[in-house]
Amino acid sequence: MNSISMNSTATRTSALSGGHDGAPMTPEQLEAELRAIGASRYHILHPFHKLLHSGRLNRCQVQAWALNRFYYQAMIPIKDASILARMEDPELRRIWRQRIVDHDGENAGDGGIERWLMLTDGLGFRRDYVTSLQGLLPATRFAVDAYVHFVREKPMLEAIASSLTEMFSPAIISERVSGMLKNYDFISEKTLAYFGKRLTQAPRDADFALAYVKENARTPAEQAAVCDALRFKCNVLWAQLDALNHAYVEEGQIPPGAWQPGEAVAAVAA
Amino acid sequence: MNSISMNSTATRTSALSGGHDGAPMTPEQLEAELRAIGASRYHILHPFHKLLHSGRLNRCQVQAWALNRFYYQAMIPIKDASILARMEDPELRRIWRQRIVDHDGENAGDGGIERWLMLTDGLGFRRDYVTSLQGLLPATRFAVDAYVHFVREKPMLEAIASSLTEMFSPAIISERVSGMLKNYDFISEKTLAYFGKRLTQAPRDADFALAYVKENARTPAEQAAVCDALRFKCNVLWAQLDALNHAYVEEGQIPPGAWQPGEAVAAVAA
Repeated sequence: MNSISMNSTATRTSALSGGHDGAPMTPEQLEAELRAIGASRYHILHPFHKLLHSGRLNRCQVQAWALNRFYYQAMIPIKDASILARMEDPELRRIWRQRIVDHDGENAGDGGIERWLMLTDGLGFRRDYVTSLQGLLPATRFAVDAYVHFVREKPMLEAIASSLTEMFSPAIISERVSGMLKNYDFISEKTLAYFGKRLTQAPRDADFALAYVKENARTPAEQAAVCDALRFKCNVLWAQLDALNHAYVEEGQIPPGAWQPGEAVAAVAA
Repeated sequence: MNSISMNSTATRTSALSGGHDGAPMTPEQLEAELRAIGASRYHILHPFHKLLHSGRLNRCQVQAWALNRFYYQAMIPIKDASILARMEDPELRRIWRQRIVDHDGENAGDGGIERWLMLTDGLGFRRDYVTSLQGLLPATRFAVDAYVHFVREKPMLEAIASSLTEMFSPAIISERVSGMLKNYDFISEKTLAYFGKRLTQAPRDADFALAYVKENARTPAEQAAVCDALRFKCNVLWAQLDALNHAYVEEGQIPPGAWQPGEAVAAVAA
């Protein structure tokens, strides 16, 4: 049973694109491998994303997405603080702490979490309901918490590598914003303010993390672990959309205790 | 944001059946409340369970269930050892350690995990594939790992209370065993040996945990936490069946990297 390890992504052996005979990949080959993982596993490929940006979800389904995704947003600074708490180099910490500032803001009423709440506001939710987390799908909580535990328990290299989904976020954000503005009359530029900021923040963060990983993942084992960390993180994002799809789109099988359409909305917003 | 806490079950305030005006429930009222939670949230109510025991799944779907549930089985002794490691009372530890013996066996080839592998054997899987965890649904891993983290991080009372789903397991086991034997020609009494043992082990364990909780949850806050722990555990079980349903039954939306029907089977078993 030694093959059983918590949080192990335990993926099938990847056909790594470089380094046959156990030789390490070059940094460029590693980057190409990471991009190939994104091209086959990033949640831009998920059916729920396609429904979301193409206007084929109803307002309740968009609400369910925003409500559940709030938990992911809210835990990002906790995830990043968990990484920060394990970094021994002040130079690294000075760079990484900016992520926490971005999400928590310089002051109350600022930052990424606050901008996400502008989206849930715009969708008619009571703020106290959203932040209470009462209506979350359990699968959302399990996936997001798995991410936080991953960065606390894995080597620093893998913790940093798990953030590399940001390499692919500009593409999904631009699809999401343009598609949602065009297709939903209950969505405005103001309610999507979160994504505007991320278009500059995410590439800056991804550039740093990618350079770090390319410099520090030297052995085949380290390079495989980095690739597994990115696969793990793709799974975290994918599982969240799977759960939304099952509960609110295809099945209508809402788990006991999760948000019911119509619940906890402040008013019938336009 | 102080309302956001990892692993908090954050459920809506339960309409506790006793103790109005903030008075604690009696132990009997607490037991009744726990039984009411099981009656509304235990996975015996899940559509996938109903499909499983009534013979409406095909062999691949039963395989997917057994493969994924293996991870839950395999992590149970790690969950119980995590609780054991936090118990300060030798008397408690002597009782609790039996759970680990039950799952790991007195010797190699014995115990609950081994009996679960007899089921996956009977369904045609290669053992090395099952124990490699390669084909797991990410949502299975996230839910099971959430259970292990819960018992490591929560107070002992809640860790013990989270095992109380065993109060309800004789009913689901008897439905499962009789239904599966009757409805699937690829299932035999031998392959279901796991469940036979659990019919005596689970009630013994549940009796102890229930008595412990009734004796030690005295304040309204402790009683509410115990009820939330049971809700959390019901969510862990429910989310596993949701993921199977989404991937292998209704949707056919298998996440990237998860087991594909036909993969890793040793032979076309009868």
